[in-house]
Amino acid sequence: MSNEHPARPAPLIGRLVVVGLGLIGGSFAKGLRESGLCREVVGVDLDARSRERAVELGVVDRCEAALAQACVGADVIQLAVPILAMERVLEVLAGLELGSAVITDVGSAKGNIVRAARAALPGQLNRLVPGHPIAGSEQSGVEAANGALFKRHKVILTPLPETDAAGLALVDALWRALGADVEHMEVERHDEVLAATSHLPHLLAFNLVDSLARRDESLEIFRYAAGGFRDFTRIAGSDPVMWHDIFLANRDAVLRQLDIFRADLDALREAVSQGDSDELMTVFTRARQAREHFGEILARRAHGQPSVTSSLHSKPIGGDPQ
Amino acid sequence: MSNEHPARPAPLIGRLVVVGLGLIGGSFAKGLRESGLCREVVGVDLDARSRERAVELGVVDRCEAALAQACVGADVIQLAVPILAMERVLEVLAGLELGSAVITDVGSAKGNIVRAARAALPGQLNRLVPGHPIAGSEQSGVEAANGALFKRHKVILTPLPETDAAGLALVDALWRALGADVEHMEVERHDEVLAATSHLPHLLAFNLVDSLARRDESLEIFRYAAGGFRDFTRIAGSDPVMWHDIFLANRDAVLRQLDIFRADLDALREAVSQGDSDELMTVFTRARQAREHFGEILARRAHGQPSVTSSLHSKPIGGDPQ
Repeated sequence: MSNEHPARPAPLIGRLVVVGLGLIGGSFAKGLRESGLCREVVGVDLDARSRERAVELGVVDRCEAALAQACVGADVIQLAVPILAMERVLEVLAGLELGSAVITDVGSAKGNIVRAARAALPGQLNRLVPGHPIAGSEQSGVEAANGALFKRHKVILTPLPETDAAGLALVDALWRALGADVEHMEVERHDEVLAATSHLPHLLAFNLVDSLARRDESLEIFRYAAGGFRDFTRIAGSDPVMWHDIFLANRDAVLRQLDIFRADLDALREAVSQGDSDELMTVFTRARQAREHFGEILARRAHGQPSVTSSLHSKPIGGDPQ
Repeated sequence: MSNEHPARPAPLIGRLVVVGLGLIGGSFAKGLRESGLCREVVGVDLDARSRERAVELGVVDRCEAALAQACVGADVIQLAVPILAMERVLEVLAGLELGSAVITDVGSAKGNIVRAARAALPGQLNRLVPGHPIAGSEQSGVEAANGALFKRHKVILTPLPETDAAGLALVDALWRALGADVEHMEVERHDEVLAATSHLPHLLAFNLVDSLARRDESLEIFRYAAGGFRDFTRIAGSDPVMWHDIFLANRDAVLRQLDIFRADLDALREAVSQGDSDELMTVFTRARQAREHFGEILARRAHGQPSVTSSLHSKPIGGDPQ
């Protein structure tokens, strides 16, 4: 079937196993199945209904309930389970005969997974290619699987010193086949960067919205909110369980970034308190310049991704009610 | 001219004077001029070009450079100058013969203006109707004046014990004529609510974006930012001068709200540090519920205001990359 298309590439690998058929795992499986780069795509999920739907929707060729069965003859094993479940999956994999299979993952933090792998698979770190696609959608589950989800999105791979170069190149090639913009980075740097640009903003948004909600049981205060606050509440609408897991998985980096933010906030408080106009103007102007820089980055990424950039473009700088 | 339209109401007042022909002042002037509720709308602005354009664009009937000339025979004087300029304008008004004119304003904080009025116009507080339209636009200046800007937006009036009931009713009626949803509130409550829902979120966003920008001179870190961070940078793109003024004008309330936020943030930090899953889930779940409540409020306000709600609707809960 896959050979009907004239531009169809020769398969790059034989068997791809995707563990966890949520939005991310399902989209990875579906995109690669559609690419023709894998002779077979096998899905694994604890949920029978997800396994059934994954086959019906063409996300995978077939599904297995058990990891052991699915991984027989695997060339690449993609772990797309919740981040706190990674350790348990790695322990199960440690008991299997994996041949030359490459193991990769999509966890939002990398240090905790690398630590778990060092403990569970100490002699097999050459096969490990930790990864993190910076992508998402308002939808979830296998029904939302979308082979184009990663197009023009960043995917960060964090190879270990022990990681085999061929395995790294293979995982890199699979993500690029999905249209992703792949970069390699050290584990520690990844976790600090993501703590600063993603995890900390979410923690602040959860805290602000909850702080107000707790003080005003009737939520009366939200009637007067507008502009800036809307953006905070949008972030705070994210999945509580997923974020609980991320904060615990990346705890050390999150706390470090939070403490730097807290020290800077104390200095800004002092500037407001003292009426230090120079300092306030310096901070606000630098923030606006950084924002303009960020806007340019987003604009370059924008093609074909209206959902990611629409709010930025529809409401340029300075439009908030005060 | 204004009597050509069959549904045209009888004028409610004679002369409306709008001081400061920026987006807010210009939109107030234009909307009321179009409504036919004022026999004459007079604009005042320090900038000659703005005065010229205001007449050309039909924002006002005529303009004056001097407050004294403009205010002769005024029934309502709307102050729409930057918030830190209000004090000086009130001092000038104190030297004029104002007859029975009602003075109102659009400042984002009310306490500082009321204090300035008590000092400058101690015997004339009966004519003061402090106000604040919670509205904005990505555009600024008289060119952006839009008579429909306040439609379905909240306008908060904060009358003093001394405020004359008839003056309050008149200002209330003018805003309602522009389609605004008018509420009355105590000065102190207004300043606390706005500090919590608008000023504090902006301070946090400025601080986060600047904190990252300062640590990473090359702004390299922004390349990896997505989702949640975009919302912070959008807020941090707001006008530095305007926000400088607002933080100083509403300093005490901003500091109070910031201190509550910091205490809550310290508690959340402790929960992350201790791996306190129950506490984290409680905070995140409560924040999400508050967000859903806020989403419903925004949805009810949404008709005819796509720019205010589009980002919320196009990207529902939980869609951020992590």
